[in-house]
Amino acid sequence: MSDQITVAIDAMGGDNAPSAPVEGAVLAAQNGQTRILLVGDQERLETELEKYDTKELPISIIGSEGKIDDSEAPALALRQKPRASIVVATGLVKAGSADAVISMGSTGGTMAAAVVILGIIKGIERPAIGGPIVGAAPHQTILDLGSNIDCKPSQLLGFGVLGSVFGNVLLKIDNPKIGILSVGSEQSKGNALTKEASALFSKSGLNFIGNVEGNDLVKGTADVVVCDGFVGNVLLKLVEGIGTELGLQLQSALSGKMPPEVVEGILHELYSKNNVVDSRGGGPVFGVNGISIVGHGSASPTTFERAVDLAKMCVETRLIEEMNEQVPRVMALASE
Amino acid sequence: MSDQITVAIDAMGGDNAPSAPVEGAVLAAQNGQTRILLVGDQERLETELEKYDTKELPISIIGSEGKIDDSEAPALALRQKPRASIVVATGLVKAGSADAVISMGSTGGTMAAAVVILGIIKGIERPAIGGPIVGAAPHQTILDLGSNIDCKPSQLLGFGVLGSVFGNVLLKIDNPKIGILSVGSEQSKGNALTKEASALFSKSGLNFIGNVEGNDLVKGTADVVVCDGFVGNVLLKLVEGIGTELGLQLQSALSGKMPPEVVEGILHELYSKNNVVDSRGGGPVFGVNGISIVGHGSASPTTFERAVDLAKMCVETRLIEEMNEQVPRVMALASE
Repeated sequence: MSDQITVAIDAMGGDNAPSAPVEGAVLAAQNGQTRILLVGDQERLETELEKYDTKELPISIIGSEGKIDDSEAPALALRQKPRASIVVATGLVKAGSADAVISMGSTGGTMAAAVVILGIIKGIERPAIGGPIVGAAPHQTILDLGSNIDCKPSQLLGFGVLGSVFGNVLLKIDNPKIGILSVGSEQSKGNALTKEASALFSKSGLNFIGNVEGNDLVKGTADVVVCDGFVGNVLLKLVEGIGTELGLQLQSALSGKMPPEVVEGILHELYSKNNVVDSRGGGPVFGVNGISIVGHGSASPTTFERAVDLAKMCVETRLIEEMNEQVPRVMALASE
Repeated sequence: MSDQITVAIDAMGGDNAPSAPVEGAVLAAQNGQTRILLVGDQERLETELEKYDTKELPISIIGSEGKIDDSEAPALALRQKPRASIVVATGLVKAGSADAVISMGSTGGTMAAAVVILGIIKGIERPAIGGPIVGAAPHQTILDLGSNIDCKPSQLLGFGVLGSVFGNVLLKIDNPKIGILSVGSEQSKGNALTKEASALFSKSGLNFIGNVEGNDLVKGTADVVVCDGFVGNVLLKLVEGIGTELGLQLQSALSGKMPPEVVEGILHELYSKNNVVDSRGGGPVFGVNGISIVGHGSASPTTFERAVDLAKMCVETRLIEEMNEQVPRVMALASE
């Protein structure tokens, strides 16, 4: 492996595939520091790439057959489509031909491919997804956001240590503060899951600050907030819904009171500040033994470009190596 | 009982007691349709009432001793303080001397007093609190919002039928649509609790529309949304936190771009539209056999006035009688 980092992009994944991933690959390759492997239907990708002047760019096409759709059961689809784009792309990471894989396709498919092909970090049971959801706290990592619906206390602890390593290594937060999302700050407040998890965190050696509440997500009280994927997913979708609604309300309240371009500017400023879910292009599949970045299906070319940057940072900061070192140690401490 | 409705107010409850409840009682009594019993420390209430011209107003003081604080364990406090304001006030309803009780004091204390003194509606295990939390859907009743942390499926069903009767009788919604808050619209999506509850709802005869998601709370897809109190409480506090934060962001984005009084007007308009939690002054303790209204400790005099209006509507629409009729029937259907 040379110093230049290689990123495999699932060019068939996402609402706007293959045009958005191909254009995103061109943008990322133009930055000059990353080699891109576009994985997908060879002919379609060649046609798409011809729209750009790529002679000098480090972009290659890797052929694959078919894709895994959102509507498919991921585990079954993996077996039925061993040459699907996400399977081939993730396989490139396993084989050492790529340092990271990026997909805006089926989240379940991306996670399943990562688990089966890259394996799971020791001490973790199932992977998770996470990231910031509230604009006022853009460096807060909340996990899980929907992949683990019914959780055991040890899973919350796993989310905590994965989020802590991510916050420390990638976001440069010194000894990240970890909170359990609950219904009161006292340790006695919470449901059966959070109370048991609290006991595990207390033994973990992590910088555990106890329970945090819904409004603490806005204040950024903790750097890492753990919750089961049921709660996380409801929160994520609620915040998205509120953002859309308040944008409309604001537009209506301001229109006529100032020039349209000023209204546009204010709306754009507030939108950028608050729509943090996609601010990094996506997030890592937390807990798998390799770098797999997953993002929204609605990804634009610049979203892919940001995701390539994130992948590059994950490689350069040795995120996976750090997780492999810290996670088993913390999980062992808490189970003593 | 005459045609005039009598409401007992816990005049020692709330951050601004007894001044706010006393002023609120005066405002409500001036409307001329409700008799108010102010329950609390006799001398303090007399002193407070002297500030107003109450000669012609139907306000009486009922003496009590002490109050239940937020910091106390409600059940224990009830036994230790049998003459506390909320106990005496709730007792007036039980005795038929009042038609409803209102408290902005300890929610736990108010609920415990209601359960012990008024009893529980047949088919319900524990009472719940609920109401709208998103401004865009002000007639949506979400419950539970924090009193039932770990729930059984039958409790969610209970919330559903209580919310349905409330929506129908009080909010005049014909056959209210009931949704279970979950992580996907398909019935197969959800946690163990929501999946089991879904099966119960399907047999209930209620207007059950299946799962709703976080963004549906903004759209008002369902008239009644059920969730366990853990999820509801996290949502409630998150929405409050986001509201505060976005108000500050907006103020900063607008200031300098238009006259201060116009900025104030816009902020006020958006705040009023979105701060729906207190729009009715409070909400009923759902599931108890009598009208007990509980609201935020920060209640102002006009909050008390609105709560009296709500209490009056609950009496006039025969809310409790309807619940007593419908709840046992639905719960029996679902358990067949």
